[in-house]
Amino acid sequence: MTIQPLIDYIQRFVTLTDQDIEILQSKIFVRNYLKGQYIVQQGDICRYECFVLKGCTKTFYIDQEGQEHIVMFSIEDWWTSDMGSFITQTPADFNVQCLENSELVMFSYDIIEDLYREIPKLERFFRQILERAFVASQKRIVRNFSLTAKEQYLYFREQYPLIEQRIPQYMIASYLGITKEFLSKIKSQLILEQ
Amino acid sequence: MTIQPLIDYIQRFVTLTDQDIEILQSKIFVRNYLKGQYIVQQGDICRYECFVLKGCTKTFYIDQEGQEHIVMFSIEDWWTSDMGSFITQTPADFNVQCLENSELVMFSYDIIEDLYREIPKLERFFRQILERAFVASQKRIVRNFSLTAKEQYLYFREQYPLIEQRIPQYMIASYLGITKEFLSKIKSQLILEQ
Repeated sequence: MTIQPLIDYIQRFVTLTDQDIEILQSKIFVRNYLKGQYIVQQGDICRYECFVLKGCTKTFYIDQEGQEHIVMFSIEDWWTSDMGSFITQTPADFNVQCLENSELVMFSYDIIEDLYREIPKLERFFRQILERAFVASQKRIVRNFSLTAKEQYLYFREQYPLIEQRIPQYMIASYLGITKEFLSKIKSQLILEQ
Repeated sequence: MTIQPLIDYIQRFVTLTDQDIEILQSKIFVRNYLKGQYIVQQGDICRYECFVLKGCTKTFYIDQEGQEHIVMFSIEDWWTSDMGSFITQTPADFNVQCLENSELVMFSYDIIEDLYREIPKLERFFRQILERAFVASQKRIVRNFSLTAKEQYLYFREQYPLIEQRIPQYMIASYLGITKEFLSKIKSQLILEQ
């Protein structure tokens, strides 16, 4: 697979010249992961920002009681990493694991500064996608506070219809912060309401 | 008051020349707000990104039941706005209100693109502070899921000691997603434990 989806994605925000694309291609690489493999593990240092060409990942945290809390799913055209660990090069709070065989473009910490220097418009690109990511994250905090579990599930289903069909129900429950029994109850109730 | 705290803040990330500072000063302005005044109101379009020179603001959302949910506080050297509204120029989801008489540096939507064009290193600066904001926001989602209310309060007090003394308890309760009675119970319990 080529990195064309990444180029197309970047070009939605900034225009890359042929030379920019050549530089980009010389710095990054594509890596395949099998279902179940980890891109980063809690406690390790995250060395890569990743763009998903194909596949699906989950970002999660295991608390002291051993409970899993899912923060994010990523599918094609999304980014994934433990950004806190990546930017500070300190141990990761999160795990990123593949839920399917996946193909990712890897931006290594070692080349990212070279990349910004050689293609300054990538600062603009990352600034713009970070603005969107921050806004989405803030909105999720509000939803957690102000919506019922049922409303949050409906929102998730509407926003991420492509993800719901690809992941087990108990992971959606974890993402919503509820038990899988409660999610199952919500879904039965929604069927009755139809 | 001069904008020196802003310059110092930016220079922690990128180096500004005298000419950069001159351009910056020609594009932005300082505005005073009284306690209780709004910088942006839910439903309006947010036209400014603001840097707090002096004062304290809260960012909150009023849900359909009229309940207030506080997403963020900002004090000196912090930023505030409804970023989702600012970047898309669509109606704001949040209110930003001053909790004290406040002095803010205003970055208008109308000048922000000029500013990026004339001082490209500001793209880098904003990219870096957005990375940090996104990480903080993701960590807050995890805390909401995995910590008890008491643990969340202790975290808040440890991370934001300067804020706690400046705002009413019921707002801290709202930020933590609990009732003020429950926060009061947690605090009594902590006193007993000392």
